[in-house]
Amino acid sequence: MEYDDRAHDPNDATLRSWLDVPSGSDFPVQSLAFGVVAPRRTNAAPRGAVAIGDHVLDLAVAQRVGLLDGCDLGGEEFAAGALNAFLALGPRVWRSVRRRVSWLLTRAEGTTRDAAVACLAPRADVDARLPIEVADYTDFYSSRHHAENLGRILRPGSPPLLPNWPYLPVGYHGRAGTVVVSGTPVHRPRGLVADPERDGRPVLRASRRLDVEVELGFVVGAASPTATPLRPDAALDHVFGALIVNDWSARDIQAFEYQPLGPFLGKSFATSVSPWLIPLEALAPAFVAPPPPEVERDPYLVAERDFALPVELTLSLAAAGSELSTLARVDARHLSFTFAAQLAHLTVNGAGVRTGDLYASGTISGPERGACGSLIELTDNGTAPLHVGGAERAFLEDGDRVVISAECTRPDGVRIGFGSVEGTIVAAEEG
Amino acid sequence: MEYDDRAHDPNDATLRSWLDVPSGSDFPVQSLAFGVVAPRRTNAAPRGAVAIGDHVLDLAVAQRVGLLDGCDLGGEEFAAGALNAFLALGPRVWRSVRRRVSWLLTRAEGTTRDAAVACLAPRADVDARLPIEVADYTDFYSSRHHAENLGRILRPGSPPLLPNWPYLPVGYHGRAGTVVVSGTPVHRPRGLVADPERDGRPVLRASRRLDVEVELGFVVGAASPTATPLRPDAALDHVFGALIVNDWSARDIQAFEYQPLGPFLGKSFATSVSPWLIPLEALAPAFVAPPPPEVERDPYLVAERDFALPVELTLSLAAAGSELSTLARVDARHLSFTFAAQLAHLTVNGAGVRTGDLYASGTISGPERGACGSLIELTDNGTAPLHVGGAERAFLEDGDRVVISAECTRPDGVRIGFGSVEGTIVAAEEG
Repeated sequence: MEYDDRAHDPNDATLRSWLDVPSGSDFPVQSLAFGVVAPRRTNAAPRGAVAIGDHVLDLAVAQRVGLLDGCDLGGEEFAAGALNAFLALGPRVWRSVRRRVSWLLTRAEGTTRDAAVACLAPRADVDARLPIEVADYTDFYSSRHHAENLGRILRPGSPPLLPNWPYLPVGYHGRAGTVVVSGTPVHRPRGLVADPERDGRPVLRASRRLDVEVELGFVVGAASPTATPLRPDAALDHVFGALIVNDWSARDIQAFEYQPLGPFLGKSFATSVSPWLIPLEALAPAFVAPPPPEVERDPYLVAERDFALPVELTLSLAAAGSELSTLARVDARHLSFTFAAQLAHLTVNGAGVRTGDLYASGTISGPERGACGSLIELTDNGTAPLHVGGAERAFLEDGDRVVISAECTRPDGVRIGFGSVEGTIVAAEEG
Repeated sequence: MEYDDRAHDPNDATLRSWLDVPSGSDFPVQSLAFGVVAPRRTNAAPRGAVAIGDHVLDLAVAQRVGLLDGCDLGGEEFAAGALNAFLALGPRVWRSVRRRVSWLLTRAEGTTRDAAVACLAPRADVDARLPIEVADYTDFYSSRHHAENLGRILRPGSPPLLPNWPYLPVGYHGRAGTVVVSGTPVHRPRGLVADPERDGRPVLRASRRLDVEVELGFVVGAASPTATPLRPDAALDHVFGALIVNDWSARDIQAFEYQPLGPFLGKSFATSVSPWLIPLEALAPAFVAPPPPEVERDPYLVAERDFALPVELTLSLAAAGSELSTLARVDARHLSFTFAAQLAHLTVNGAGVRTGDLYASGTISGPERGACGSLIELTDNGTAPLHVGGAERAFLEDGDRVVISAECTRPDGVRIGFGSVEGTIVAAEEG
């Protein structure tokens, strides 16, 4: 088949799909988020898909029936249970597939449209899975407001920011094997925590200070080899898309363990991500300038173009049996280091990046009062509990359901939703 | 074919192979280290192998011709470029394959021995590859002497050990994607380092304090799911084998970046491992009691049986064009937390472990003067350079070749070698 999609612009705000896309949907035709889904009523294997309105377009079927011919795919990439093989093909192929899917959903007619219709399924009929096999997981700490808030709480009387903070995106490696998709229950972790009544001896118990961290995550598609540092301006050649991250944190376990090598078991029990990878190509029209740095940064961290993402994230919580209450709204545009600077930092020492690498922004807090992406900030270290429905919350209780959603409205008026990441706290096993 | 190997004990010190195994070889028939090799003179794909004396036994061929029948393998596990599929099968299959290979190399006769001979190649004719696809890489800090030495150097005037150290194996996650096999050149990393002449502003430059860390590493074979903490005494059901790790460290990059989230770019540029996985089953007869803890530890870290490993590691260095000089010898038996306690710690918070997870002991230093596993300790933070051949060394220079070897002599007199991990420093790219 020949497709007339060369001049097609998938970001065009005037595009309308022949499929009914509800107004205000997280997944307009200008987005085309990629994920992995398993049909709920059959035993069919998980496969690649694109979200469109209340539906998904099955990319494995689309590829098999020839709808993606000419996109320079190798073959069967979307029949896998993770998007890694597709992501490894690089930006030219990503753009080609997105342009084709956009064309199919807006311009295709006749038997071609019929073939596309046959690839559609209601989103309610599929289970969204973890979209990638995570290679390395890295977490940054790039919100100045969050770092200052935590500094004030954890090191009262000292300057809230440590001396290195303004100069580089401080970060650490996390556990890739415990990154889970939205909806996966989160078991309350146990661990050694300080016990003032035991003369310095810690006690092993279930965490009593279980917290959330509201973050954006970025997924590397095209790898980069050892000893070839990447410029920030090369970010879109390597990073495919963004998603929401909840970096669950057990503050009491973390507090006892983290000196001098950083967070470990206080984080490694679970990290939840939203299931849909929002292509950076769809978000690029919304990029803005990052906040001006407070110091002169080394050029390796400075991009020529803008990469800050004006994404608003909403943190909500529901106690067991109750309705969701909104706890905070934060905006990723305030992050002091962009995902492009973070990528440059990850590679400046010569380390390569791999397809499937996931790196997160760090907890996002903003300048406004109450704009905080964690409970430890929102409750002033647990001393000022929040009112959530009829209950009070300093930290998370068993049965609590946490939901983080996100959205970005582009200057052309197109609203790109991220869907949501959610998780419910399950009681710790008896030890 | 039927094999008469049920009663065969591959650890039996009296076993002799019909193959000529040089006296003092790192790879006696009582060890049977597993690795992945690529034949050097053909384009054949990398495949699983066992090291025996100066040879390797090609497990992919052995499996294909039926020599491993009855070992409960699935099929083709050893035709892969990593041992993960084999390791995932668990301890019963590991023991079964090791027993069969031992039997083939000692008892097989006639056409069975002929078939085994056909699987042999000189070790000099193959390239050893990274034996596993690394899932998560974790590094501990479990040598009391190393932690005390570093504490004295980095925090003079304070107690050398932080309060949490005696109670738990402090650790952090490292970068799995930059774990490389012995022989891979190591590019000197660049990064931001403190510059006293710049009023607190760091400078981007090639590290001037590039160091080694002498460690043992442990590879998880059989996975364990979320929310099922492992007892230390279950370690041999999950951990397949051990190897040597050189956790290269750029002390100046690390010093500027590591507060408050731990080591990051100062470590992530490269971590080198030796190519042969020494089965813990071969080392188990040598296990000894760990040093008595200085505090009462929580029971989750306390094993009923002994798991400390009396492995002696030797650190050597050669300047470009010079001979190797021995810098230090250290013994892993002094580690305060065993690999079994470390595994229990990794999972106590409910995190699962995966096939291919690699965790390292932390730099091994001993109580004796000069028994230190890093240059920062051996040179008292660079102030007392070592004499290496005709040169002086505080930290590593470009062209330096570092070799770490290791061995364990069992109570039955069998000496199990680990081979070695080596790497040569390559100049940093111009920035």
